[in-house]
Amino acid sequence: MAQPLRLGIAGLGTVGTGVVKIVRKHAALLEARTGRRIAISAVSARDRAKDRGVNLNDYAWETDAVALARRDDVDVFVELIGGDEGPAKAAVEAALAAGKDVVTANKALLAMHGQALAETAEAAGRAIRFEAAVAGGIPVIKALTEGLAGNEITRVMGVMNGTCNYILTRMEKAGLTYEEAFAEADGLGYVEADPTLDVGGIDAGHKLALLSAIAFGTRPDFGGIELEGIERVAIEDIRAAADMGYRIKLLGVAQRTGRGLEQRMQPCLVPSKSPLGQLQGGTNMVVIEGDAVGQVVLRGPGAGEGPTASAVMGDVCDLARGFRLPVFGQPAATLDAAPRARSELPAPFYLRMGLLDKPGALAKVAAILGNAGVSIDRMRQYGHADTSAPVLIVTHRTARSAIDTALEAMSATDVVTEAPVALRIEHL
Amino acid sequence: MAQPLRLGIAGLGTVGTGVVKIVRKHAALLEARTGRRIAISAVSARDRAKDRGVNLNDYAWETDAVALARRDDVDVFVELIGGDEGPAKAAVEAALAAGKDVVTANKALLAMHGQALAETAEAAGRAIRFEAAVAGGIPVIKALTEGLAGNEITRVMGVMNGTCNYILTRMEKAGLTYEEAFAEADGLGYVEADPTLDVGGIDAGHKLALLSAIAFGTRPDFGGIELEGIERVAIEDIRAAADMGYRIKLLGVAQRTGRGLEQRMQPCLVPSKSPLGQLQGGTNMVVIEGDAVGQVVLRGPGAGEGPTASAVMGDVCDLARGFRLPVFGQPAATLDAAPRARSELPAPFYLRMGLLDKPGALAKVAAILGNAGVSIDRMRQYGHADTSAPVLIVTHRTARSAIDTALEAMSATDVVTEAPVALRIEHL
Repeated sequence: MAQPLRLGIAGLGTVGTGVVKIVRKHAALLEARTGRRIAISAVSARDRAKDRGVNLNDYAWETDAVALARRDDVDVFVELIGGDEGPAKAAVEAALAAGKDVVTANKALLAMHGQALAETAEAAGRAIRFEAAVAGGIPVIKALTEGLAGNEITRVMGVMNGTCNYILTRMEKAGLTYEEAFAEADGLGYVEADPTLDVGGIDAGHKLALLSAIAFGTRPDFGGIELEGIERVAIEDIRAAADMGYRIKLLGVAQRTGRGLEQRMQPCLVPSKSPLGQLQGGTNMVVIEGDAVGQVVLRGPGAGEGPTASAVMGDVCDLARGFRLPVFGQPAATLDAAPRARSELPAPFYLRMGLLDKPGALAKVAAILGNAGVSIDRMRQYGHADTSAPVLIVTHRTARSAIDTALEAMSATDVVTEAPVALRIEHL
Repeated sequence: MAQPLRLGIAGLGTVGTGVVKIVRKHAALLEARTGRRIAISAVSARDRAKDRGVNLNDYAWETDAVALARRDDVDVFVELIGGDEGPAKAAVEAALAAGKDVVTANKALLAMHGQALAETAEAAGRAIRFEAAVAGGIPVIKALTEGLAGNEITRVMGVMNGTCNYILTRMEKAGLTYEEAFAEADGLGYVEADPTLDVGGIDAGHKLALLSAIAFGTRPDFGGIELEGIERVAIEDIRAAADMGYRIKLLGVAQRTGRGLEQRMQPCLVPSKSPLGQLQGGTNMVVIEGDAVGQVVLRGPGAGEGPTASAVMGDVCDLARGFRLPVFGQPAATLDAAPRARSELPAPFYLRMGLLDKPGALAKVAAILGNAGVSIDRMRQYGHADTSAPVLIVTHRTARSAIDTALEAMSATDVVTEAPVALRIEHL
């Protein structure tokens, strides 16, 4: 029988506790599947006294994650601390320097420092695995890096932040304002300590940057994402979108074109009846398109103890089985620094504006759109009590730059009563 | 640089040709991702003269697949011949005996002989990979065997035969009878030479047997599947199901209970708006439920040149990367011969019958259901021109055995004019 694979687990929050539970509960199953016993040597967390509902007495305790990462009785350092700097980064670097493999759920760390960490790991012949960092329990990193390795990937898309999806779902279902739905999500413990990570689209953007790197063989480039959160999605947009047969989702899209790497993470309209439109609450969905396979869609729980621990354990089992591959699927040194490209691929757009209720107002707006080369597919003007009429427009496919030109010209008129909202429509 | 990985490809139909195309088109990409060149040494097929739209001049030609499997310049034998006996089986056995790894798309071979082949392969230290055998381009074998290896799998379900789904979709959308829709699918080349493989549910059953083996650590047991094809699905059922908010799908379900391994492949009703209900044409969907992850749903193309070749190449890339694991995810010797259990898990059922249009007829049927312990959720009787009234019943959750008792009693009355239809309803 092979030697046991010995884990050191740093961070005993929800996910870390979940990992301990699986290792204890499924010891026999894991050994049957991997041919090795999976053992825990040591753990670390901030508060030793806290009751986590799991027996930790069998494991050595370290107060310092770096010390844990360096222990001689640890083969795999499991980093579940979080954050792109500080102890998580220091401990991962220490683990690699000490010749350990790393399994992490830390999307921020890899999105910001993934290139350097991958180079370090590969130079040391070590692995960094991060299935749990993207889309929770969905084995999407594995699908992209391994299962679909015979494809040139043409596009990757996903709804990958459950908190945003929860807020948008509640706004639609319960008619809550953004502020009300946010407060509800916060009360349920769904929102990160720094809410901008969630609602600003940063967390989802980190995940998209990692998927892009694997899909297109490019260096992770979080800074290259056109990033827009959900903070400005108004209940009026939710209602108007529903009225036109759409739902609003925080959707990430990455593709490589002749102009470079396009990455967007922004609120989009998707058809209500489409698989993306039907996603509820914390469920994530990732869509991968490849030249041979066509379209593959993966759906599953995006967060939580069980799903995230499941993803961590998938990586641990791979390491126990001796599977090793470069961090982003090909050697970090071969990853391309693709130029950033602003998305110019045409799409239909949704526009919402308030129009002054006087003769010629609509004509002005229509002329501006026409002059910008934007053609109208559908338009609705709603009844109204005051002097400003809510107007919705769905355009034919057009470039974002044409929309921006039109929006600018509209704001310069005296008939548009508030800054128009423009959201991209994605049909999958 | 590592030695190239040398393939011998037996079978140059759609999938084999697709594999050759990927190896030629993506040579650089495959080498970047796996660290090795993927080369083709030799190919074999029945007809050398046939134009397959791809240049085969660089490869040695074998007329005999067994000879191909034994070639010294072949590391991986790619079996794309098909069939559970004959040349495919002989060639796979020859390849293993000669110390080659095997990649195959052959679900019949593995469903019928997987246990013996896995034992042979594992004794020889060789791998048999079969991602392409189940659900076409969807990397579901990988998800189940590797990504979700930290889970006790509680249930696996799937719509995995595109031909059946095409026929059922056409019946619903175009109002075709089963015979008309079958003829259309046959004309498009969607039906196997032996149609029973598709419409009898055998092909889908083979796939379910493979998923079960991995999910539950059991020996593949195709013979243990409660198997029912779509040949007896009537247009009346399609219409009645639609009227009640359902669609009919050939759905496979496997789960392990205290009583043993339950495996079913049969036409079921699923809610029209559910992800399964919305599956169109040749698209496949597999649902995996695990104790940690919850539910993961995978959707993608179930057949065709590109998707199936993509799956074959995923396996080839794994072998190029040196990934090796037992055929069914744990050593064949440890797979359990689980007792076969007929599914007794309660579910709602759909019943359709013709009732003689005379007083007391419905009372008799209702009494029979009541006596069998079956309670009615919804019932509809439709207008009719003759003496027999179409009656639909959706029951509350009940065991299949209770339904069977009731059906038998109904057939013994003088009021039921034709054998009642009973289909299980699955809510996912």
